[in-house]
Amino acid sequence: MANNYNVCVLGATGMVGKEMIKILEEQNFPVARFLPLASERTAGSKVTFRGKEYTVEEAKPGSFKDMQIGLFSAGAKVSKVFAPEAAKAGCVVIDNTSQFRMDPSVPLVVPEVNPQAIKRHKGIIANPNCSTAQMVLPLKPIYDKAGIERIVVSTYQSTSGWGKEAIAEMYDQTKKLLADPRARVEAKYIFKQIAFNCVPQIDQFTDNGYTKEEMKMYDETRKIFEDDNIQVTATCVRVPVAIGHSETVNVKTRKKISIAEVRKLIGSFPTCVVMDDPAKGIYPTPIECEGRNETFVGRIREDISQENGIDMWIVSDNLRRGAALNAVLIAQKMITDKLI
Amino acid sequence: MANNYNVCVLGATGMVGKEMIKILEEQNFPVARFLPLASERTAGSKVTFRGKEYTVEEAKPGSFKDMQIGLFSAGAKVSKVFAPEAAKAGCVVIDNTSQFRMDPSVPLVVPEVNPQAIKRHKGIIANPNCSTAQMVLPLKPIYDKAGIERIVVSTYQSTSGWGKEAIAEMYDQTKKLLADPRARVEAKYIFKQIAFNCVPQIDQFTDNGYTKEEMKMYDETRKIFEDDNIQVTATCVRVPVAIGHSETVNVKTRKKISIAEVRKLIGSFPTCVVMDDPAKGIYPTPIECEGRNETFVGRIREDISQENGIDMWIVSDNLRRGAALNAVLIAQKMITDKLI
Repeated sequence: MANNYNVCVLGATGMVGKEMIKILEEQNFPVARFLPLASERTAGSKVTFRGKEYTVEEAKPGSFKDMQIGLFSAGAKVSKVFAPEAAKAGCVVIDNTSQFRMDPSVPLVVPEVNPQAIKRHKGIIANPNCSTAQMVLPLKPIYDKAGIERIVVSTYQSTSGWGKEAIAEMYDQTKKLLADPRARVEAKYIFKQIAFNCVPQIDQFTDNGYTKEEMKMYDETRKIFEDDNIQVTATCVRVPVAIGHSETVNVKTRKKISIAEVRKLIGSFPTCVVMDDPAKGIYPTPIECEGRNETFVGRIREDISQENGIDMWIVSDNLRRGAALNAVLIAQKMITDKLI
Repeated sequence: MANNYNVCVLGATGMVGKEMIKILEEQNFPVARFLPLASERTAGSKVTFRGKEYTVEEAKPGSFKDMQIGLFSAGAKVSKVFAPEAAKAGCVVIDNTSQFRMDPSVPLVVPEVNPQAIKRHKGIIANPNCSTAQMVLPLKPIYDKAGIERIVVSTYQSTSGWGKEAIAEMYDQTKKLLADPRARVEAKYIFKQIAFNCVPQIDQFTDNGYTKEEMKMYDETRKIFEDDNIQVTATCVRVPVAIGHSETVNVKTRKKISIAEVRKLIGSFPTCVVMDDPAKGIYPTPIECEGRNETFVGRIREDISQENGIDMWIVSDNLRRGAALNAVLIAQKMITDKLI
C-alpha cells in the first residue's frame, strides 16, 4: 500500500497556494496530514481541503516539525527564511519562488524535462519561473532529437503572474475606462496601466537592460537543460489577460528536423498538446487554456529566415503548469521514484 | 507661392479615412478642393473638413476627374477597381490597402526611409502595412550604419488595425465578461474572443504556415530596403488594446554597432523618439502613443544570445504612422520634391 505524507502549503491564501490545494485534491495526492501556512498578514483565514475547513496558521520556524513535503509560494523573502528551517526539520521543500532557483546546490525541476535532477536535492527543490516552465516542455523533445542552439522568445503574460491584486487592478481599471475612456487610472501593482495596454516590464531591470524575468528565462533554461551552450534572448511583456501566459518562440536547432517531426515529437511528449491546424483556424489562446494542466502548442512552422529554424506559439495556465501543478508533479515524482 | 491640390479621400467614413482627414487638417495640407468618397454602403454620410460639412459621395469611375491626389483606404477590392481609374484620370493614388504593395511597378514607401522610390511611380504609390511601417523607421539608420542580416519580430497589435467594428467588438465582449465572467461572447470580426485574450492570427493563413500579415512584414521590409538579403520571421498577434501596435524586434546587424550608437541613431532619425530609461521605468506603451505621429522605441539593449544582436520594443499609433499619416507624408514629400 502507498504511503501517505504530511503536506504543508506555505502561502495557502495566495493565488498559487490556492491552486496548489486544488491540485492536491484533483491529483488525489496521498496526504496524511494537511497544514496550510501563511505569513502573519493572512494567517487566521480559512481554506478548504477535501471538504474540510482549515484555519491557516502563521508560519514559524517550528511549523515544519513532522511535515514531510512543503509546497512554498509566499514570496522569495519568506522562502529564504523558512525553506532552510523546513529542510532542517526533514520536510522537503518544493519552492515556487525565485529564491533558490539559481543556487547550484538546489535542483531546478520540470519533472517531465529533467527528473534526474530531483535526486540531487539537499532538502530544497526549486520550481522554475512560469514562463520558463511552459517553454522548456515542448522544447525538450526537440532538444533531445536535434539540439538547440538559440531561442528568441517574446511573452504575453497574464496579470495573475503578478498575484491576485494585479488581476483586480486590471478589472478595476477596465471598468473605469469603459465608463469613461478619458479616466486616469491608478497603477499600483503593475508598473503602468494594464487595461487595454501592454507593459514591457515584468519584475525589475538588471544592469544589462534585461528585466529579472527575462534573465530568468535565460538562466533557468540553461540550468534545466544542463547546457550552457543554449543561447536565449527574451522580452517579457504583461498583457491584459487574467490567466494564461502565451509565448512566441523562435528556435534554431543544431541539426535539421522537419516540421512534421517537430509536431509528432511535441504531440507525444507528456502533458504537451499540439493544437495546430491553421486551415481550420485552430491554435491555442489563453482563455482556452485556463484551468488546464497541459501546455498547448500551435503555429508550428518552418522559420523562413534561417536554416534549422522553427517558430511556434506556446500557451499554458501559468498558475498551474508554471507553478502549482509543477510543484505537485515534482512531489509525485519523488514518491514514484521512492525519493521520499 | 505654393500650389493647392484637389484631394479626395476614398474610404472617408472608415477609421483610417477619418484619421486621414484629421491629418490633412493638422498638417495644414494645401488642399484646393476636398472630396470625400466611399463605397455605396456608407456614401451619403457626412464628414467635416476644416469646419465645413461634406456629404460623402459614392466612388465611381468618373469620380477622379480633376482630382490630383487620392488617399485610398477602403479595402483592397475597392482599390483594385478604382486606383487604376484614378491614375488614368491623372490623380496620383496613395493606397493604404495591400492591393498593390508587392506590385513591382508600384513603389512601396515610408517617406523617411525610401523617399527615392516615390519618383518611380506610375500613378499609384503604396503605403506599407502598419506593422511594417513602424518597424522599418528605427531600423533604417541601423541598416545604413551596420547593415541588417536578420529580424525576428513578434507583434502586439491593437484591434483598430482590423477596423472600428473590431474595437467595438472588444469593448462589447469586455462589458459582457465584466458583468459575467462565464459569459459566452461572440467573435465576429476578430477570429476568436479578444477581450482578456491574445489571438495569434491576423489576416488569413498562407501555405507556409505564416499568416498574410506575417508575410507582409517579410516581403514589405525587403521591398522598402530594396534588399532581398534581409531575413525576417514574424509572428503577429492581436491583443486587447484599442489603438497602438507594439513590437518586440530582435535584429542581427552585419557589422558591430554599440547600443549607445543605436540609441543615438534612432533618436536622430526623423519622427523616431527614443523613450528608454529602464532605471526610471521609462519605455513606451500603446496608450501613451495613441494620437501621436512619432514612432517610439524603448527597451534597447544588447542581445545576449548572439554577436551583433540588438533587442528593442517599438510602439506607434497604427492608424497614424502605419496608415493615415504615412499617406499624407508621401503626398507632402511629392509636393516638396516637385513630383506633382
